Amino acid sequence: MDAGALSKIIHLNPTARMFSKPNPNRPFLSTAKSMVSFATSNKNHQSYWTSINADIDTHLKQAIPIRPPLVVFEPMHHLTFAAPETTAPALCMAACELVGGQRDQAVAAASALHLLHASAFTHENIPVTDRPRSSSRPVFDHAYEPNIELLTGDGMTPFAFELLARFDNLAQNDADRVLRVIIEISRAVGSQGVVEGQYNELRYDESNGKKSFNAAWLDNVCRKKDGELHACAAACGAILGGGSEEEMEKLRRYGLYVGMIEGIFNRGERNEKWLQKVNELKNLALKELKDFNQEKVKKIFSLVENKFNNVCV
Amino acid sequence: MDAGALSKIIHLNPTARMFSKPNPNRPFLSTAKSMVSFATSNKNHQSYWTSINADIDTHLKQAIPIRPPLVVFEPMHHLTFAAPETTAPALCMAACELVGGQRDQAVAAASALHLLHASAFTHENIPVTDRPRSSSRPVFDHAYEPNIELLTGDGMTPFAFELLARFDNLAQNDADRVLRVIIEISRAVGSQGVVEGQYNELRYDESNGKKSFNAAWLDNVCRKKDGELHACAAACGAILGGGSEEEMEKLRRYGLYVGMIEGIFNRGERNEKWLQKVNELKNLALKELKDFNQEKVKKIFSLVENKFNNVCV
Repeated sequence: MDAGALSKIIHLNPTARMFSKPNPNRPFLSTAKSMVSFATSNKNHQSYWTSINADIDTHLKQAIPIRPPLVVFEPMHHLTFAAPETTAPALCMAACELVGGQRDQAVAAASALHLLHASAFTHENIPVTDRPRSSSRPVFDHAYEPNIELLTGDGMTPFAFELLARFDNLAQNDADRVLRVIIEISRAVGSQGVVEGQYNELRYDESNGKKSFNAAWLDNVCRKKDGELHACAAACGAILGGGSEEEMEKLRRYGLYVGMIEGIFNRGERNEKWLQKVNELKNLALKELKDFNQEKVKKIFSLVENKFNNVCV
Repeated sequence: MDAGALSKIIHLNPTARMFSKPNPNRPFLSTAKSMVSFATSNKNHQSYWTSINADIDTHLKQAIPIRPPLVVFEPMHHLTFAAPETTAPALCMAACELVGGQRDQAVAAASALHLLHASAFTHENIPVTDRPRSSSRPVFDHAYEPNIELLTGDGMTPFAFELLARFDNLAQNDADRVLRVIIEISRAVGSQGVVEGQYNELRYDESNGKKSFNAAWLDNVCRKKDGELHACAAACGAILGGGSEEEMEKLRRYGLYVGMIEGIFNRGERNEKWLQKVNELKNLALKELKDFNQEKVKKIFSLVENKFNNVCV
């Protein structure tokens, strides 16, 4: 399958690859029933997210065409679209719209977020000699040699920052805002953000089977890898859309809760304790949105509802 | 040896670790004698580079202190200072001064260039399962597990962009200049810059011993890995120092030639053909400097002379 076809599948159903199937033997379903009441009908909002994802997709395809030198652009194109989707980039654009900005103002930042996520995903699946085999994560289908995947990931990260810094994509924004976004994103994906989450996930993989499940570990990984990426994405959307400091901080917290819900569901957690936690996170997320335009809030909150709906069906 | 001690050794003699010893059985020495005439006495200029390197060192040590979480900052500190030095960061600061700027205006960019170089060096020495063993490159003394080195390199790259984008380090510069520098640097270290050079070096390593020496390969690797990094460094120094477009392009070309000389010498090339090439590059480099303040030119050109002196002693 070529990268274009792959990306088409991802974007036809933007949440399709995000969740593993629930296991009916686990205590999930009983709790799920109670959760269904939270979920509103959001068929219209689904098209909102589909259209946002299509914009990001278009931007990335224009930025990374398959062109010579093929040895560079073919793996970069493939690995960009082969990574499992995260909702952080779409949240960035929705946050920009929520504070009154135009969606286009955040498309470069959203694309950069996807690229950085894809680069991190690529590197965490490279068969480094001492990497432990994880039983809890899906096996990645490698299309290239490990060395090429390592180098391609190394090329994707600076390219993401180039996308952010390019003036032509950000004509409506002033340079100060863009620099602020670069700082936000570099921190979120760096050593005390996504990389810290990856480190903790690695330590967990190494200890797998040797000790019982460690709730603090899952919390840290979900907070760092998924939570802070979403928090940063929402804050950046607010910055680029011209939101106030207060709006930005509210959206940052909203993003953190959304990301942590994604992290918990992505790791297949369905027991009562974790479902209670995601319900708490959902309520906290909704609370952060109370002062925004309520029509727009319905759209951005449907991101959380979609996550619940996807594990309840 | 701790990272501080390591960095001290590097910076006491800023070019000490850059060149392998010449082999007296190769045709190098006869040509070297003729080259010595190029080299002026530059003891004073040596202190210029030492002081620039000390400034970069101080900036990096402040930016990456060894502090909690140690699991993050200890490897980052170590790997930042364990990488072999490249003259690109120092050239960035010297170019800034050459066009009339203050050295401090370029210290964040210079530090970012070193970090990105150190990250690339760390990743190219990770024992990925399919990495060929290179007979032409020194063995890297690994202080950490491969996985930690992979993650640390992944943390160093966004951190370099954070250093660049931070306002407090760049108070004298306007945000537009900083964004331009971010674009320059992201391109130089990315898929069509350093990463392309690394790819070609990898292909060469794989074919090592199977075919005769490939001059085009060496040229490409030196151009991409060393030449473009120095070209970008000099251009960024000019941008941050407030140089004109013409000055920036002259310094970009100067940097390319300086970097290619570094690349050729670093790879131990000492035969007549390559020494002829470095002499040509040296003359081209000098030509680019003819319209600048000649007192300052002596300083910045001593970088090239130092490279020759180091292989001639």
